[in-house]
Amino acid sequence: MELLEERIRRDGIVKKGNVLKVDSFLNHQMDIQLFNEIGKEFKRLFAECPINKILTIEASGIGIACIAAQYFQVPVVFAKKAQSINIDGDVYSTKIESFTHKKIYDVIVSKKFLSREDHVLIIDDFLANGCALAGLIDLVQSAGAAIEGIGIVIEKGFQHGGDLIRGKGVRLESLAIIDGMDDETGDIYFRQ
Amino acid sequence: MELLEERIRRDGIVKKGNVLKVDSFLNHQMDIQLFNEIGKEFKRLFAECPINKILTIEASGIGIACIAAQYFQVPVVFAKKAQSINIDGDVYSTKIESFTHKKIYDVIVSKKFLSREDHVLIIDDFLANGCALAGLIDLVQSAGAAIEGIGIVIEKGFQHGGDLIRGKGVRLESLAIIDGMDDETGDIYFRQ
Repeated sequence: MELLEERIRRDGIVKKGNVLKVDSFLNHQMDIQLFNEIGKEFKRLFAECPINKILTIEASGIGIACIAAQYFQVPVVFAKKAQSINIDGDVYSTKIESFTHKKIYDVIVSKKFLSREDHVLIIDDFLANGCALAGLIDLVQSAGAAIEGIGIVIEKGFQHGGDLIRGKGVRLESLAIIDGMDDETGDIYFRQ
Repeated sequence: MELLEERIRRDGIVKKGNVLKVDSFLNHQMDIQLFNEIGKEFKRLFAECPINKILTIEASGIGIACIAAQYFQVPVVFAKKAQSINIDGDVYSTKIESFTHKKIYDVIVSKKFLSREDHVLIIDDFLANGCALAGLIDLVQSAGAAIEGIGIVIEKGFQHGGDLIRGKGVRLESLAIIDGMDDETGDIYFRQ
């Protein structure tokens, strides 16, 4: 997606350790006009799929999922990290390892909001090692729901998450795939 | 807001201990059509304010803030719970006590995304004891930004958060104010 790649080139900051900071428009401050273009692109890519629900995970997937949901006219469910006393005991749960926060989360979705009638589009902001996505796929499969596809804003193509997910036979569409970054020059190399 | 009160009456579940579950449409599964009506109402209420940024807090405020931001045509910034290694050291921080999760969070916003030039609308899903809102107000004031107002979806009027915030002289608009709930009958009493 040209507009997105331009924005990443302009406002993304490459840091040591293959860290890409896009917090000025994607996952801390959020550019809602850009999110609308992202939402339209997801709709274009998955237009023929009988999607009736979007699933994401807190926190940075929520904004993108909600804006995109307007184009699909479906509700959004977000998976929650860690048990809350306001969640019923009746949940699907999985464990997700976060390398960013160096911990393992319990991630849950209420059984009320995912069932075998559902045709789910999973949306998230980033795909790197694929741990979060694997957890979301696990939650959908626990519910017996169908995964129509996965929409990712930025995939770090030099990590193995994309291969892992595509290897499961799930349709994965990433709007920008980064094959390499140079923290000295700030250059970002996108997959063509 | 009539549509919202009807929805709370229809789908809200009153539990012991003054807990109101609205997770089927507001803060776990999210009804994006309803969020659009909420966004329009916030815009109507704050139409004359020179708002250039919406601030919310992860996780359940994000969806509402993003949908509402479309009517204001401004970016959204969400305050993050706990330090992440992907956040620069240069942050405003405050502490927020969560009664739901029975813990105290460090909550941060990058100094890049709040400054004395900003005119901020704070948006959140719930107001009960006001701890989260007081923290967000603290972050805005640390940045020297102006608080144009606060938009809340559901205020528990029988708790003291609303009085606390209004006592600070900040304009607070809650779309539904609940003055009482009965967990035996399921009745919910709205302020007129």
